Amino acid sequence: MQRTKVKDLLQGAEVGKEVLLKGWVRTKRGNKYVNFIAVNDGSTINNLQVVADEKFSEEALKDVTTGAAIAVVGQLVESQGKGQAYEVQATSIEVVGKADPETYPLQKKAHSLEFLREIAHLRFRTNTFGAVFRVRNTLAFAVHKFFNEKGFVYIHTPIITASDAEGAGEMFRVTTLDPINPPLTENGEVNYEEDFFGKATNLTVSGQLEGELAAMAFSDIYTFGPTFRAENSNTTRHLAEFWMIEPEMAFYDLKMNADLAEEFIKYIIRYALEHNREDIEFLGQRLAEEDKAKPQNERQEMTLLEKLEFVVNNDFERVTYTEAIDILVNSNHYKKKKFQYEVSWGVDLQSEHERYLVEKHFKKPVIVTNYPKDIKAFYMRLNDDGKTVAAMDILAPGIGEIVGGSQREERIDILVERMKGVGIHEEDLWWYLDTRRFGGCPHAGFGLGFERMVQFVTGMGNIRDVIPFPRTPQNAEF
Amino acid sequence: MQRTKVKDLLQGAEVGKEVLLKGWVRTKRGNKYVNFIAVNDGSTINNLQVVADEKFSEEALKDVTTGAAIAVVGQLVESQGKGQAYEVQATSIEVVGKADPETYPLQKKAHSLEFLREIAHLRFRTNTFGAVFRVRNTLAFAVHKFFNEKGFVYIHTPIITASDAEGAGEMFRVTTLDPINPPLTENGEVNYEEDFFGKATNLTVSGQLEGELAAMAFSDIYTFGPTFRAENSNTTRHLAEFWMIEPEMAFYDLKMNADLAEEFIKYIIRYALEHNREDIEFLGQRLAEEDKAKPQNERQEMTLLEKLEFVVNNDFERVTYTEAIDILVNSNHYKKKKFQYEVSWGVDLQSEHERYLVEKHFKKPVIVTNYPKDIKAFYMRLNDDGKTVAAMDILAPGIGEIVGGSQREERIDILVERMKGVGIHEEDLWWYLDTRRFGGCPHAGFGLGFERMVQFVTGMGNIRDVIPFPRTPQNAEF
Repeated sequence: MQRTKVKDLLQGAEVGKEVLLKGWVRTKRGNKYVNFIAVNDGSTINNLQVVADEKFSEEALKDVTTGAAIAVVGQLVESQGKGQAYEVQATSIEVVGKADPETYPLQKKAHSLEFLREIAHLRFRTNTFGAVFRVRNTLAFAVHKFFNEKGFVYIHTPIITASDAEGAGEMFRVTTLDPINPPLTENGEVNYEEDFFGKATNLTVSGQLEGELAAMAFSDIYTFGPTFRAENSNTTRHLAEFWMIEPEMAFYDLKMNADLAEEFIKYIIRYALEHNREDIEFLGQRLAEEDKAKPQNERQEMTLLEKLEFVVNNDFERVTYTEAIDILVNSNHYKKKKFQYEVSWGVDLQSEHERYLVEKHFKKPVIVTNYPKDIKAFYMRLNDDGKTVAAMDILAPGIGEIVGGSQREERIDILVERMKGVGIHEEDLWWYLDTRRFGGCPHAGFGLGFERMVQFVTGMGNIRDVIPFPRTPQNAEF
Repeated sequence: MQRTKVKDLLQGAEVGKEVLLKGWVRTKRGNKYVNFIAVNDGSTINNLQVVADEKFSEEALKDVTTGAAIAVVGQLVESQGKGQAYEVQATSIEVVGKADPETYPLQKKAHSLEFLREIAHLRFRTNTFGAVFRVRNTLAFAVHKFFNEKGFVYIHTPIITASDAEGAGEMFRVTTLDPINPPLTENGEVNYEEDFFGKATNLTVSGQLEGELAAMAFSDIYTFGPTFRAENSNTTRHLAEFWMIEPEMAFYDLKMNADLAEEFIKYIIRYALEHNREDIEFLGQRLAEEDKAKPQNERQEMTLLEKLEFVVNNDFERVTYTEAIDILVNSNHYKKKKFQYEVSWGVDLQSEHERYLVEKHFKKPVIVTNYPKDIKAFYMRLNDDGKTVAAMDILAPGIGEIVGGSQREERIDILVERMKGVGIHEEDLWWYLDTRRFGGCPHAGFGLGFERMVQFVTGMGNIRDVIPFPRTPQNAEF
């Protein structure tokens, strides 16, 4: 007999028939005449109710406890009770794997997210994390579907890299050298020629530079892979290991880049709303509950569903950095000295500034463009004013920066000049410069932090709760 | 004016209209009256022919050289010449980025794969690598599509891990400690408590163990991410960094596991045949050319297309390890002492044995099951005979092992016993054992090396030629 998933059973496809159901017990309640067992198999947030009537003795059901794996045979029928359309009238119940109620950590009572993080190997089994990771799965699929439909080529850029040129942040060293007595050169430095790759290597901070190489052949490419920062940031928005999506497009300028990013974000959110509505509704309720505990002025103005639908249905605001600074400087917030950090042309926007723009001023996602060149990366295209570069950041309500991108500097002389300015040697990026020497063209791209997008769609406040096994300072468990 | 991709132009969608074409020059040939410029933009292996008549002076076309990026405006018309259905009659040609013929490495002449590996940043621009990476892209998308349609949840398992328990191979150390003078404990060992994660960490060799945790909640999951081996293997089949797909299914036994793997492999190959037929045909011709240089007995019996269609349309052979050993021992090959390595019950199958089974004996993919427990991993389920485990390897013609999988040991007492046997401490895998303590169930899964699959479908002999920037001993360029 073939197993049927809960998701399909709840749609009533096999109503009236004998079905085989396999999954895990969420709850059991009842009396000596009848027991109701809620079974979940991860295919949906909803449980299927199994009705075990009096032919099942107390003894027969004693191991049917929260967390146990069971296999049920029975008839799928329309439910007389409230809360579900269909239920299974059990004819046999087999306990496949017990879960001792004395020691199983996930009992019925609600657990804190902090506690669940410590048992990340089990938290998939809760409603919240079931929903979060189903949404994550859907978003990941939507990413591939979006780019596939547009003819982008998915490129796996290297994880281990000898390039330390991007300067995007602190890096993890990858090595097989003796950890106590590494081979040294005559100068007393580590002799990386004896390391596995014959040179010093790190974990990548971005696949962009390699992605650009591929875009110069396929026109449109994207990456979707893990990236790393060895930064001692213990915040709700930072991970040492996170996944990033980096499209790169030949013959694109900044405007086309921003258009694509906006279309992309809307597409994947819409896709999740269509395919995981029940999960998102549940997460929205969770968030609303959480909000109730907060002071009035910190509560969300919109529910999670409203926020997502608003983003999908409205144009993103577009302003230049210079306009953004003007807005900030002319705000009452500024005049009342409520910003902690300085605001003036040339400074990098801080979280508080981004939040003000997005959450107070525009009340929608904002694309900020044309930042001062000194606060942005060397590869961003210098604008004609000589002061700004064709950069763009997309800021989202509640999350802050969710996309960073730019048109790339395709003019080799300016690029080399900018590299010199930040101390990068031409010979270290000979291959990158080659793309400007041979058949270069205007091109652009952006990076989207996947976990921040999952946070945005699920409403989860801590980034540790949207990746299965988070890596943060002092933590690499599981 | 909107750019149209070559792929669309070649389908004649805008015939008779003025179009904007952007891409890179592959070749230019002609005379002073007319020039034919072959333009490729990576959207297809085929070039679009641009006809530049006498109104374009020699001077105007002097920078239209192989590798240059150009933008062409002209009318899309049915071609009078042979070799293409449509061509563009140019009205304007702009050279967006030059490629100096004196220094551009990719001139018309054929280059060796070895040479192209050294300029991996440019090899995307060749027919061969254009085809290879378009096929790779299609296979990757097919992987996600297959599992998505079946309701599997995509899980990102960690890349950096403190678990060194799997024993799948040598690992790369990940660290931020001072490379010359790391902090030491009183015993003179490295004090990893001061490292970034507070313990020794490595790059993952497999996401399986973490994948199992998620399968115990979602029923069916898969991973698709990079994995690493710090092995000094300089072969055409090994990389230090490669991508692996690892599905894991609750309530599956070995037979269901094998069925799924076979269906999966056929699905993604069929998908590539449907979506990248021209690329695969080109790669097949390339392979046939390569074959001509070989002695008769080393040539392929089937063309690449024939081989792929054969795999898609025929059942995989299924034999037990014990049967496979019998076949080998009773072969003429064995009797003539043509095997280099020993063949007897208990030894691991060597490449030569696998190739004999697949290429000489069965002439099709083979699923070998139930290997001796001593040559397989601790987590594989012990069979009732006490000697073998419920393992399976799938062997493919020309590639060898392409899938390794097993039913997992769900019985905690036997699992702990097996762990002891290989020196793994229970406390190091407490979370893994928890899945057997709480609601465990029979489950199974497999791993597919993505690069080997790309090799199989593209016919590329060297694994370095199917990943954009290969990482191998002494090599982490780009």
